[in-house]
Amino acid sequence: MRKPVIPTPMRIGFLGLGIMGQGMVMNLLRSGHEVTVWNRTALKCKDFVKAGAFKGNNPAEVVQSCDITFSCVADSTAVKDLVFGNSGVLQGITRGKCYVEMSTIDEETMQDVGEAISARGGVFLEAPVVGSRVPALEGQLIILAAGDRKLYDDCFSCFEAMGKKALFLGSDVGAATRMKLIINMFMGTVVASLAEAMAMAEKVGLDQEDVAEVFSLGALSCPTVIHKSQAILNQKYDPHFPLQHQQKDIRLSLLLGDKVEQPLYVAAAANELYKKARRLGYGDSDIAAVYRAASA
Amino acid sequence: MRKPVIPTPMRIGFLGLGIMGQGMVMNLLRSGHEVTVWNRTALKCKDFVKAGAFKGNNPAEVVQSCDITFSCVADSTAVKDLVFGNSGVLQGITRGKCYVEMSTIDEETMQDVGEAISARGGVFLEAPVVGSRVPALEGQLIILAAGDRKLYDDCFSCFEAMGKKALFLGSDVGAATRMKLIINMFMGTVVASLAEAMAMAEKVGLDQEDVAEVFSLGALSCPTVIHKSQAILNQKYDPHFPLQHQQKDIRLSLLLGDKVEQPLYVAAAANELYKKARRLGYGDSDIAAVYRAASA
Amino acid sequence: MRKPVIPTPMRIGFLGLGIMGQGMVMNLLRSGHEVTVWNRTALKCKDFVKAGAFKGNNPAEVVQSCDITFSCVADSTAVKDLVFGNSGVLQGITRGKCYVEMSTIDEETMQDVGEAISARGGVFLEAPVVGSRVPALEGQLIILAAGDRKLYDDCFSCFEAMGKKALFLGSDVGAATRMKLIINMFMGTVVASLAEAMAMAEKVGLDQEDVAEVFSLGALSCPTVIHKSQAILNQKYDPHFPLQHQQKDIRLSLLLGDKVEQPLYVAAAANELYKKARRLGYGDSDIAAVYRAASA
Amino acid sequence: MRKPVIPTPMRIGFLGLGIMGQGMVMNLLRSGHEVTVWNRTALKCKDFVKAGAFKGNNPAEVVQSCDITFSCVADSTAVKDLVFGNSGVLQGITRGKCYVEMSTIDEETMQDVGEAISARGGVFLEAPVVGSRVPALEGQLIILAAGDRKLYDDCFSCFEAMGKKALFLGSDVGAATRMKLIINMFMGTVVASLAEAMAMAEKVGLDQEDVAEVFSLGALSCPTVIHKSQAILNQKYDPHFPLQHQQKDIRLSLLLGDKVEQPLYVAAAANELYKKARRLGYGDSDIAAVYRAASA
Repeated sequence: MRKPVIPTPMRIGFLGLGIMGQGMVMNLLRSGHEVTVWNRTALKCKDFVKAGAFKGNNPAEVVQSCDITFSCVADSTAVKDLVFGNSGVLQGITRGKCYVEMSTIDEETMQDVGEAISARGGVFLEAPVVGSRVPALEGQLIILAAGDRKLYDDCFSCFEAMGKKALFLGSDVGAATRMKLIINMFMGTVVASLAEAMAMAEKVGLDQEDVAEVFSLGALSCPTVIHKSQAILNQKYDPHFPLQHQQKDIRLSLLLGDKVEQPLYVAAAANELYKKARRLGYGDSDIAAVYRAASA
Repeated sequence: MRKPVIPTPMRIGFLGLGIMGQGMVMNLLRSGHEVTVWNRTALKCKDFVKAGAFKGNNPAEVVQSCDITFSCVADSTAVKDLVFGNSGVLQGITRGKCYVEMSTIDEETMQDVGEAISARGGVFLEAPVVGSRVPALEGQLIILAAGDRKLYDDCFSCFEAMGKKALFLGSDVGAATRMKLIINMFMGTVVASLAEAMAMAEKVGLDQEDVAEVFSLGALSCPTVIHKSQAILNQKYDPHFPLQHQQKDIRLSLLLGDKVEQPLYVAAAANELYKKARRLGYGDSDIAAVYRAASA
Repeated sequence: MRKPVIPTPMRIGFLGLGIMGQGMVMNLLRSGHEVTVWNRTALKCKDFVKAGAFKGNNPAEVVQSCDITFSCVADSTAVKDLVFGNSGVLQGITRGKCYVEMSTIDEETMQDVGEAISARGGVFLEAPVVGSRVPALEGQLIILAAGDRKLYDDCFSCFEAMGKKALFLGSDVGAATRMKLIINMFMGTVVASLAEAMAMAEKVGLDQEDVAEVFSLGALSCPTVIHKSQAILNQKYDPHFPLQHQQKDIRLSLLLGDKVEQPLYVAAAANELYKKARRLGYGDSDIAAVYRAASA
Repeated sequence: MRKPVIPTPMRIGFLGLGIMGQGMVMNLLRSGHEVTVWNRTALKCKDFVKAGAFKGNNPAEVVQSCDITFSCVADSTAVKDLVFGNSGVLQGITRGKCYVEMSTIDEETMQDVGEAISARGGVFLEAPVVGSRVPALEGQLIILAAGDRKLYDDCFSCFEAMGKKALFLGSDVGAATRMKLIINMFMGTVVASLAEAMAMAEKVGLDQEDVAEVFSLGALSCPTVIHKSQAILNQKYDPHFPLQHQQKDIRLSLLLGDKVEQPLYVAAAANELYKKARRLGYGDSDIAAVYRAASA
């Protein structure tokens, strides 16, 4: 069911139509926003144009023609290309233009982007999201924001369309990224631990279905545990959240821990297990495929 | 609300009135079972006698005077004392007497107990439970059983009174213990990871309440994550599940993994963190106190 | 070159002719000791009888016919069989008979054995050794002893024949075992780390021979690093120290750490890597085969 | 004793007079090389000028006035400042000028530096060294080199003065850095494991001196184990190799492992222990201070 959102009249840009961006844009369109999209491989824009979106020719053009431009791409490298590259975001920024970075990347890159936007007179908000493919499709993301408060307020109807909850964590750009990383570190460690439990169950002669049932009934019953134990049971690893992105987020968390001198023994072990899963060829599979590393 | 349980007319014994046993016995009594209790420190029997229980003088006497005797104590040592000790369970076993071991212990001890009971003509069921103090109080445990099928069936009304779900995992004594260990290994690793996440949040300048809120909204929202993040926030570590028992269960899981050649990198790291928490003096506190080791 | 040892005139018994026992007995014989041997598979005694040893029919008989009996077998189970089994050591112990346990086992078993020997009027020394096949062959073991001081002194010529150094760690039986476990935990972790380094070298396109050469020249140059890096280079895993014994020792160390509340994050990770190597089928290979787990 | 080195007539520059650079320059001077030094805090140049060195005013000037310029500074940031900064190395590079980077840094930075030097017509060699303060002082470093072969040959007398062994690993800049990181990862993990062993020894009531003695006699006896166990015994942590540099090197190794999909469970655990030691305030102490984290 669509939520009754009163769309802002501002023109919205959206850069990146990957697993996450697709759902987010569709929800912006459904709730009546005017959206201009751009994607590195232009072909992906087609369905969205059909659904009512405009198509931009490059990031700079999108930013110029819109009031607020969102971006949600795979990693820091993609963000840097997008922002600092030829015909990139920065070239479209003029005084008052608003840019909201929703990708999950490292803090330094987020701050570099924020500073570059501000230096050009633009307005910046970081707004990484919690949730993967399905919450993105269903407008059930959690949006963690930090930076310009007025821009956060202006994003109200967009955030309502894309998410079930938005939190403003203050003006300190980087805070939202730090929280996002911590959440994903926890998520990744839980799934790695689930994988070890399921692998062990099989080794000691238990029926994995029984184990999954008990998990679904007990005090750890939550969407992640239920869905990922089912994925493991059925060996279905189509990517809701690609394993290599998960591992990137744990890596970034560990580096953040390094910076603030926080040891993270459990997360560090989980990180190595994800590396092993990448080595086994599951980088593009769902994070549940870490089971393959645990049971190898 | 009490569940409408039709109590078995059989006489029920219950050995052990610790954190778990207290709730379990109260639910047996409430649902109309005739229960004879025994506890190492006899004083604890008082409230239960007031609530309608009989009091046995030693384990052997309880077993002799009852049809089915349950036991739920702290660890393998306590079980061995209880079963093999002076005036212990074994001395009360005669042909047809039923004994149900609900403690979470290592597989070898469970099998030794089962064999000793059977050798005396007794009937044995292992039935460790999933859930801690509150589910025990509320009759919401999950009961994992293996061993004699008829005894499992005879326990129907007792299991209904104590739990929300019972699973029979086959006649192979040890299977339920193995599943219980795996579940607790997972639980312990999740809480250790939560502790690392909360410690990190504090270190990077985030409000732990914001983090707890996002956890409660996201795909990992479950009773354990909600309650333990609250316990960490409030630094309230009264024992729902004592940390040293949790660590014992991870240790037993790792030894089980050793036996079946299953590496468990993530659980092994969590285990060391719990050892650290014990060293810091939190062995008797709730498992949430592993936070103190993570943030030390 | 044989060391100029003046052999004790006492009659020496030796139980266990495995990888370690073979070298130890040969050095006792070479240095002129009168040795009676026993081994579970009797065939192995042949070469030693040829070299001048007497052959005992069972442990009890060896103990009865000798003044001091040494034992060096694979693990706690083997020690328990040997000591407490039919025609076992205990049945041969009478007042004043001396028994020296040189196996690397857990502390509890060592203490149980010591108490059982003492209870029968026997004299007990624990004396686990540091060193594997080659030092055993060359009489270059390090002998760690605790228990009866006079027996330690009486073993002087035997220890001289078998080792390059003996340390008496006090009368507290268990102390030598604890030190032995710690040393083997360190050894095992170093070799696991070496394996990770060599696996990584290969992955990043370096010549493993160059790496081994640098290791042999640097501040970490020692027999273990030199020999194990060569073993890895040549993929020659004939057992100097069988991998499953190594893993058993780390497991026992971790359990000891558990008892004294000492977290051991690095050793715990190494332990899981050895489990993985066992799973890959390298339990009977040399510890260097942990490389296969690291590079899998 | 000085080694009989025939010094090259080429003019040598040296940038960086930290723990490592001090010993290296002194050996270049002692063996008769003409050396021009520069250091960020100029005061440190004094002793070297007294010993016969010239003093440069900035990196660019040193490079201009010398044939071959070596650099050995703390980390990637310092290297980037040195090379790309104002009056930096790059500004002194003209066709044929030779630059040898001996710092231990990440591969990407090393390659960036190499490319920038080459782009200006300079000649580049990476040459990180194995060994800490004492080997630097004694001219006993191991020098790992990759890049321009002719430059490597021209460095012959300098490398002879500074080291006991130089290896040329090919023209692929980055190879020497990769090997250096792997060696330091191994070193760091060994010392972390030693720290755990010594902490455990103390906890189980052993005399740490006995343990250190056994380590010095056994198959793991090497300068690192001997010196670091003594440092731990005496709680003397003056920096031969500063702990935070060690941890940086393990971090870089883990990131390298990430890139090539090599899981490193043991090194990852060691890394977290070093982070803990930094948190306890031992970042500037010797790596042996990781004992404080292990025994905390």
